[in-house]
Amino acid sequence: MGEHELIRDCLTGLGAERPDVGVDIGDDCALLRVPAGEAVAVSIDTLVAGVHFLPGCDPVALGHKSLAVSLSDLAAMGAEPAWATLALTLPEPDRAWLDGFAVGLDALARTHGLRLVGGDTTRGPLTITIQAHGLVPEGMALRRDGARTGDLICVSGSLGSAGLALRALLQGRAPTPGLRARLERPSPRVALGRALRGLASAAIDLSDGLAGDLGHLLDAGGVGASVELARLPLEPEVAEAVAAGDAAGDWALPLGAGDDYELCFTLPPEHAPRLSELARQAGCLLTRIGRIEPGRGPRWLLPDGTRWQGDPRGFDHFTSAR
Amino acid sequence: MGEHELIRDCLTGLGAERPDVGVDIGDDCALLRVPAGEAVAVSIDTLVAGVHFLPGCDPVALGHKSLAVSLSDLAAMGAEPAWATLALTLPEPDRAWLDGFAVGLDALARTHGLRLVGGDTTRGPLTITIQAHGLVPEGMALRRDGARTGDLICVSGSLGSAGLALRALLQGRAPTPGLRARLERPSPRVALGRALRGLASAAIDLSDGLAGDLGHLLDAGGVGASVELARLPLEPEVAEAVAAGDAAGDWALPLGAGDDYELCFTLPPEHAPRLSELARQAGCLLTRIGRIEPGRGPRWLLPDGTRWQGDPRGFDHFTSAR
Repeated sequence: MGEHELIRDCLTGLGAERPDVGVDIGDDCALLRVPAGEAVAVSIDTLVAGVHFLPGCDPVALGHKSLAVSLSDLAAMGAEPAWATLALTLPEPDRAWLDGFAVGLDALARTHGLRLVGGDTTRGPLTITIQAHGLVPEGMALRRDGARTGDLICVSGSLGSAGLALRALLQGRAPTPGLRARLERPSPRVALGRALRGLASAAIDLSDGLAGDLGHLLDAGGVGASVELARLPLEPEVAEAVAAGDAAGDWALPLGAGDDYELCFTLPPEHAPRLSELARQAGCLLTRIGRIEPGRGPRWLLPDGTRWQGDPRGFDHFTSAR
Repeated sequence: MGEHELIRDCLTGLGAERPDVGVDIGDDCALLRVPAGEAVAVSIDTLVAGVHFLPGCDPVALGHKSLAVSLSDLAAMGAEPAWATLALTLPEPDRAWLDGFAVGLDALARTHGLRLVGGDTTRGPLTITIQAHGLVPEGMALRRDGARTGDLICVSGSLGSAGLALRALLQGRAPTPGLRARLERPSPRVALGRALRGLASAAIDLSDGLAGDLGHLLDAGGVGASVELARLPLEPEVAEAVAAGDAAGDWALPLGAGDDYELCFTLPPEHAPRLSELARQAGCLLTRIGRIEPGRGPRWLLPDGTRWQGDPRGFDHFTSAR
């Protein structure tokens, strides 16, 4: 079997079958039908070996994560996943690796009813680019720029777990299975994004860490914020690691580590009573961590009400070039 | 200016403004509105430094070519270019390089009324992935699989010029400006694709060379073909290079060199009289080179009617790993 045939064999027919795919993988283009009244949300993301994942990373996990990263962007817009394309650059075609990658991608795609409709494979340093395409009713998309003074700031799930797993791996220790799963198999918050349509005033997904991503949301809205650090949702291991830092706490872990793939969103105060119902709908923890204020940028508040003076970007990143 | 700001500064606002872009570059996703009755055609393509272009290639030309390659796929489906996304992996952000790349991409995007609506930039070995999105009326897309016995096989423009330019560069010689332009600044045949809607029975773009790409078209349709080599449209330099080969001619250059980005299409015989009108509409040469026949794969015929016995994949490729 030649190189092209091997790749085609491994990467064709992945994900759910969809009646809106007019031409599937294998022609010059895929052809997609969009229902009337829906807009198409698109997001493209690249993972580079040695930059975004450790060389030797399990290919099944990598197939999952490559797609999860793009689905997280769809979730942040309130879009329903529909189709994806894959541009895969490989040093050499390796059947076992391709099979594993396909298994991981296929499983997550099916979970979200998404079809892999096209791709390109080239030879070179291992690089994975996925574009995800979602559907969202016209005018209902969540955006970054709608936060207003007085809105609650909320996050899904918990923060810093993926970062703690990465720290362990970089130090040559095995993370606990729970932490490793948070790093390698993030769950994009698609159901939450859908549930937030018409309720959240702004939303963003947490890929680079709360500090940076909340910063983008505040900049887009032209507002500031206060965040109570004691309210950040942390797994016990993360809370321990924070406490083990200096006197004020190692908050750079949950604020700056990245790879959480949770959603951060703002909720007008009149919708505050719906938080627990939203959490039920979305099947995940939702936590109010602060409030939008006039001004610029976030203020990180310690339990005594003073500002934390640390640098949220001080986390020991994989590489500074993320 | 930080790395992110530099990249954002260079790559925001490229291409034509379009009223159907609900959310432009800068949010988690771009948001695109599709007119009723139109399907979306998508194609993703990657260019890797040292594999698809020579290191040190002019960034303006590279910006042009990266988009042209994807637009050529839209052309092959008869789709009208609308939007693109860019995933750019760079060893380090370099203002002069980014500016040049943006100029080349922007100019071609504006020519085709296309908007760059999203992207991702990462650090790593230079790799450029572009997804182009086009619109085509429902049921009017050109496909690979419609060729029928008796259809004429036609190609646009001329073949082998990009390959001859690459051969010169690989041998350390400067190609003529005309040949170099064919390699570095291909013109995607968008107007031709549009004109072929409802007329061509099948179409494919020529990225890997006529032999391979016509082979895909024949496989998809379950048919064979005879191609008269003497009919291949060749620039004078290419014709000379072919004649300078062995006794039967170096046909591997126009058949196997790739990078032509012309369209190869099949036309039911009743539409043959429209070829010259189509060429006028499309603004390019169109040449009938052969005919679809029962069987499998192409037969390459010399002027005396015998089969050419050479290997069309024998061309001195940039790398065997394309």
